[in-house]
Amino acid sequence: MPELRKDPVLGRWIIISKERRKRPTDFAVETAKSIGGFCPLCPGNEKTTPPEVLAFRLGHEQLRDAPGWQVRVVPNKYPALVIEGDLGKEGEGLYDRMNGIGAHEVIIESPNHEETLTRMSPENMFFVFKAFKERIADLEKDLRFRYVMVFKNYGRAAGASLEHSHSQLIALPILPRMIVSELAGALSYFQYKERCVFCDIIRQEMQQNVRVVCQNDQFITITPFAPRTPFEMWVLPKHHSSAFCKQDDYQLHSLSTLFSETLRRLDACITDVPYNFVLHTEPLRSGGVEHYHWHFEIVPKLTSIAGFEWGSGFYINPMPPEEAAAYLRESLDTRLKGELCEKNTAG
Amino acid sequence: MPELRKDPVLGRWIIISKERRKRPTDFAVETAKSIGGFCPLCPGNEKTTPPEVLAFRLGHEQLRDAPGWQVRVVPNKYPALVIEGDLGKEGEGLYDRMNGIGAHEVIIESPNHEETLTRMSPENMFFVFKAFKERIADLEKDLRFRYVMVFKNYGRAAGASLEHSHSQLIALPILPRMIVSELAGALSYFQYKERCVFCDIIRQEMQQNVRVVCQNDQFITITPFAPRTPFEMWVLPKHHSSAFCKQDDYQLHSLSTLFSETLRRLDACITDVPYNFVLHTEPLRSGGVEHYHWHFEIVPKLTSIAGFEWGSGFYINPMPPEEAAAYLRESLDTRLKGELCEKNTAG
Repeated sequence: MPELRKDPVLGRWIIISKERRKRPTDFAVETAKSIGGFCPLCPGNEKTTPPEVLAFRLGHEQLRDAPGWQVRVVPNKYPALVIEGDLGKEGEGLYDRMNGIGAHEVIIESPNHEETLTRMSPENMFFVFKAFKERIADLEKDLRFRYVMVFKNYGRAAGASLEHSHSQLIALPILPRMIVSELAGALSYFQYKERCVFCDIIRQEMQQNVRVVCQNDQFITITPFAPRTPFEMWVLPKHHSSAFCKQDDYQLHSLSTLFSETLRRLDACITDVPYNFVLHTEPLRSGGVEHYHWHFEIVPKLTSIAGFEWGSGFYINPMPPEEAAAYLRESLDTRLKGELCEKNTAG
Repeated sequence: MPELRKDPVLGRWIIISKERRKRPTDFAVETAKSIGGFCPLCPGNEKTTPPEVLAFRLGHEQLRDAPGWQVRVVPNKYPALVIEGDLGKEGEGLYDRMNGIGAHEVIIESPNHEETLTRMSPENMFFVFKAFKERIADLEKDLRFRYVMVFKNYGRAAGASLEHSHSQLIALPILPRMIVSELAGALSYFQYKERCVFCDIIRQEMQQNVRVVCQNDQFITITPFAPRTPFEMWVLPKHHSSAFCKQDDYQLHSLSTLFSETLRRLDACITDVPYNFVLHTEPLRSGGVEHYHWHFEIVPKLTSIAGFEWGSGFYINPMPPEEAAAYLRESLDTRLKGELCEKNTAG
């Protein structure tokens, strides 16, 4: 049984996941770049994963755990947390722990092993976001869980251990520290100003227009004012919304379009850069709050500058976000114009 | 001029250091392992670094910026912060920034290019800690600074860009977020219990004796109850002390002995593993506080599992600290016994 443990000074919960120890890569210092070999996420290999909990199938083929899916969600074979059991909260002297109860799922983003989220069409990316939404909505019903963390590791340096395009979610019986801190900061701002801090950020960014990467009618991508890394980006809904789950299909389509453009702009700046993204959304069953604003944070993993920051929690960023935004705005424009011309010619 | 910027939601300060952009490795995704070539930190190359701010010379040779030193401290040639100027705090709409005023220094730990802190004798390591102490004491006099962060990146994966054994310090006009959080957590515990939380941790660890790695009369090394990574270790003084600067020579010798053993135990578990350590000590001019307890945190950089955690601030650790401590206790014992026998035979 995995275990959740709380640091008595910082209040930070961490997962001790002995089950994952089975993976031989866990303690290896990074060497190989390619992963290769048999892929358990590819169509035809459905029996090698735990049974699916959700799949979007576009054709007439409706068999579970069989090919024909566009996006497929399965429990992680090496879960950091397990779904069955009770929380068993207990103290041990001054320490606090509980059983590692939770869900850990893999969202397989495409049937095509060679596909990446960056190259994927916005139409296909829509099903990825739709899967996030449906899984969160389903897990919200389990009263043991307080938060669903949705994230992606792209590239080995960013923690991916499988090549096939996928993201993950972890349903937690606690609130992760980053969310606790964010909620506290946002609440404190709201109490003073009676406005959402993220709404104010968006307003200021649109006025200043120096850190805006791209936008459409519903969403905006910015490089944040105090970014941890070069090319860190936030994708936010322009209109106040605290829960990702509340987005309708129109909004998810709009998000897909902008998210796709965002990733392609990043790729045009640093080809195939490893990155993590994390969905920041309100805790489960909050019912919508005035002071919080859901968003994605995309953090490129530029290994050579990330070592110290990771160990210390203190960030030195060699690139001002205004310059990063300029690179991101300009980088793709030539290529985009080219594609647009092609489309117009083809149409 | 570098810049300090505060995240309006989290209150986290980051450094935007355009000066460091000059380094071509900044945006490269990790490839090479060896660095090699000319070494600006080696004896004989003193003129290629900025002039030294401190050096311990053991022989009669007393020339500054010339060979003969055991430990040498120089300003970083590519500083994240600069020493001259005023803070120039200002707002920009809802954002806060100030000039990147601070000191950024390199502690060259040995004249020998092949030396590592792990292999170094405790006698030589003493001068490294002594240099930390003297530099903090000196920088404390500059009223612009509120904190001196001392840290080490060992190995390229942990952020080292030079091979020659060195650590670094950054004097800051702000308190880094990790210290703010730690002080707040420790204060809250103290207000409730009227005891230092770290003193309580040490007491419990010595009683339980499952996460103790090694100890001597003055210091103890433990794997913390809620560690971020496998083999994370904390080295703490057994007796309450909030400021590293207050340690006398006897204590620094004692620290060197235990720190040396700690690093050798880590190395015996995972040969040459990249790691970061960070000195956690009270803010400058605090004059000693009851609720805080200085210590070192040593965080091995196991790249393949660090990607997600780094992007999200949420940690999944595949190794219980009790097992890590057992490995660390056992790993070196055979080797240590061997060395002891040799010594006895030689003596």
